[in-house]
Amino acid sequence: MVINQKMVKLGQVRSVIRETFEYGNKRAAEIGRENVFDFSLGNPSVPAPAEVEQGLLRLLTETDPVALHGYTSAQGAPDVRAAIAADLNARFEAGIRPEDLYMTCGAAASLTVSLNALCNPGDEVVVIAPFFPEYRVFAEQAGAVLRVVPADLERFQINFPALEEIINPKTKAVIINSPNNPTGALLSADTLRKLCDLLKARSDAYGSPIFLLSDEPYRELVYDATAEVPYLTNLYDHTLVCYSFSKSLSLPGERIGYIAVCNRMAEYSEVYAAVCGAGRALGFVCAPSMMQKLLPSVLGKTADMEVYRTNRDLLYGALSSYGFSCVYPDGAFYLFVKSPVEDAAAFCEKAKEFEILLVASDSFGCPGYVRISYCVSTQQIKRSLPAFEKLAKAYGLC
Amino acid sequence: MVINQKMVKLGQVRSVIRETFEYGNKRAAEIGRENVFDFSLGNPSVPAPAEVEQGLLRLLTETDPVALHGYTSAQGAPDVRAAIAADLNARFEAGIRPEDLYMTCGAAASLTVSLNALCNPGDEVVVIAPFFPEYRVFAEQAGAVLRVVPADLERFQINFPALEEIINPKTKAVIINSPNNPTGALLSADTLRKLCDLLKARSDAYGSPIFLLSDEPYRELVYDATAEVPYLTNLYDHTLVCYSFSKSLSLPGERIGYIAVCNRMAEYSEVYAAVCGAGRALGFVCAPSMMQKLLPSVLGKTADMEVYRTNRDLLYGALSSYGFSCVYPDGAFYLFVKSPVEDAAAFCEKAKEFEILLVASDSFGCPGYVRISYCVSTQQIKRSLPAFEKLAKAYGLC
Repeated sequence: MVINQKMVKLGQVRSVIRETFEYGNKRAAEIGRENVFDFSLGNPSVPAPAEVEQGLLRLLTETDPVALHGYTSAQGAPDVRAAIAADLNARFEAGIRPEDLYMTCGAAASLTVSLNALCNPGDEVVVIAPFFPEYRVFAEQAGAVLRVVPADLERFQINFPALEEIINPKTKAVIINSPNNPTGALLSADTLRKLCDLLKARSDAYGSPIFLLSDEPYRELVYDATAEVPYLTNLYDHTLVCYSFSKSLSLPGERIGYIAVCNRMAEYSEVYAAVCGAGRALGFVCAPSMMQKLLPSVLGKTADMEVYRTNRDLLYGALSSYGFSCVYPDGAFYLFVKSPVEDAAAFCEKAKEFEILLVASDSFGCPGYVRISYCVSTQQIKRSLPAFEKLAKAYGLC
Repeated sequence: MVINQKMVKLGQVRSVIRETFEYGNKRAAEIGRENVFDFSLGNPSVPAPAEVEQGLLRLLTETDPVALHGYTSAQGAPDVRAAIAADLNARFEAGIRPEDLYMTCGAAASLTVSLNALCNPGDEVVVIAPFFPEYRVFAEQAGAVLRVVPADLERFQINFPALEEIINPKTKAVIINSPNNPTGALLSADTLRKLCDLLKARSDAYGSPIFLLSDEPYRELVYDATAEVPYLTNLYDHTLVCYSFSKSLSLPGERIGYIAVCNRMAEYSEVYAAVCGAGRALGFVCAPSMMQKLLPSVLGKTADMEVYRTNRDLLYGALSSYGFSCVYPDGAFYLFVKSPVEDAAAFCEKAKEFEILLVASDSFGCPGYVRISYCVSTQQIKRSLPAFEKLAKAYGLC
């Protein structure tokens, strides 16, 4: 039997996140959903903003169905791309033209299309720990080798000495993700400037550009007025922004996002063509048409972020007061907590005794922590706090 | 500059179909849309059945938006897969279980996921000319080499002597497409039985299965009561049915389809796992959730096929009467017409003088023909007939 064994393994191995979620469902059937504190999945818990339903109803009742559900061009409907470009330019002075955008089936597709467009076999793709584990799958499928920069455990920015050592003439791209899954941390403007300076210097030295892939599903999920999420094309010409509306609009199942190729890179035309070529070769055809056509009416809207902010404040405050050491989450909907023992998986097992379901950080390339997804009801968080306190006491933290 | 040059080329080279379509838009601006007879694109012209709009409106007003737009499992929502399996079993006694189905973003995704699941570098994938040109792109992206069986120009079935010569121990899969794009021809039950017997015999001889990928976006588009489209899992265990709702429900932009893996193949578990792995590695995550959830209420419905039947009868009858030699189209919405001169591209240029836009068959691996997509308004067909008659006269056919 000689079918592709890499694909067999990718299909057989369940992620820790998914296994924890399944355990939660089983346990909920045994003791009641309200008694299980499942923090495993990064699935938005806040409904899409009302404008989404209104917009879809309007499209369905007022648009010719042949046009509404018909193929768009592979790059995306021109008016949709024009609206997105105008929105990005109004918010970030990003200098994005409609023709720089390529509509995709969400962030994962934005990344696989970009990586397949850029990479040749043997190229290296650099990620900063802790990182979303699927980056490895996507990079390796594109024929690249993943190189991991160990975490900056002080501030969850970038470990620059390690990064400087890892970058070499084979480096084709660096993936960043800010706000970050799994830490919720933001890369500061200083960190980003330093990163872009390094990439520029190395690109010049090697005579070949290193691309920056900015994975931005959480861009709109920041909770503090002072938090800044710089727009990367303004800092670095060789940037591809990989965006998704999954989290900002609570539409993760609908698969809608885009790639923005910075038009200031010298190789712009080739890179944009390669993005189109990769989308074609991977079988994407076009991004879902009705969801594309919804976007102009909902740009700038988000699901109710106040719920996530409330959850963050509750959880960060309570867990810190119980003696847990938590990374302060500026954005996304994750809290990254240091395990009181070296083995985070053992800590997760202990937490299960209190019906708390957490995800050990090992698969994120940064052992010794757990990820708490707080995209759950505020009620669940309130109900879970006594259990967290007991868990802290079990480790003598309070 | 060393980004992936294969992808650059795939993105830069426009298909003949797309170029012809763009020319049609330009010409329409010059002389009026009603005076251009554009038969280039296979884009459904008949609206989705009313049940689609009703079903979507109901989902939007009656379903919790968090569930409606949330992630489904990568394989697809369980109730959706159960409904599709029940429908297939009621219609074809297909023996499909819900867990044999993997929901996809349409036929292209069904094919790329299947090919990436099955193929190792250097494997061969066999197609039967004339064939949809993207098969080459999909197979080569999956690391395989495309082998083309020359067309059976007598009956547009399968040239078995050529197929027997092409199949060898490196053959991993054969792709069939019935009803066919670009001919509209159906593979007969006899042809399919003969094909399956050959694949069984060779699989046994080589000690390694040859998979049959049945690309079925046109399954529901057949116009004669006597036309039979056998269900392939009933004929051959190593079948993967690659289905799409794009044409049957007129939803091509929404990207919704599935892969059905025959559970009677010995390697079923590995193959299904590899399908899941390939979907993950290519970045599909899940098929669009609202479209998935629509399906149980619209299974068995189709767009109004009477329009296509009327168009077929009109066009086939008239062109035959003008002296053109046409393949009789049992299904799909394409008419395949022999070019009166050897160079089909030259014939297409001549047709342009009469404002008729056709696609030369060269890119389908079968030179000397043109494809007419009759998924247009019946009015356009009626208006175009005098032009076709003049074109025939220009070649002395009538």
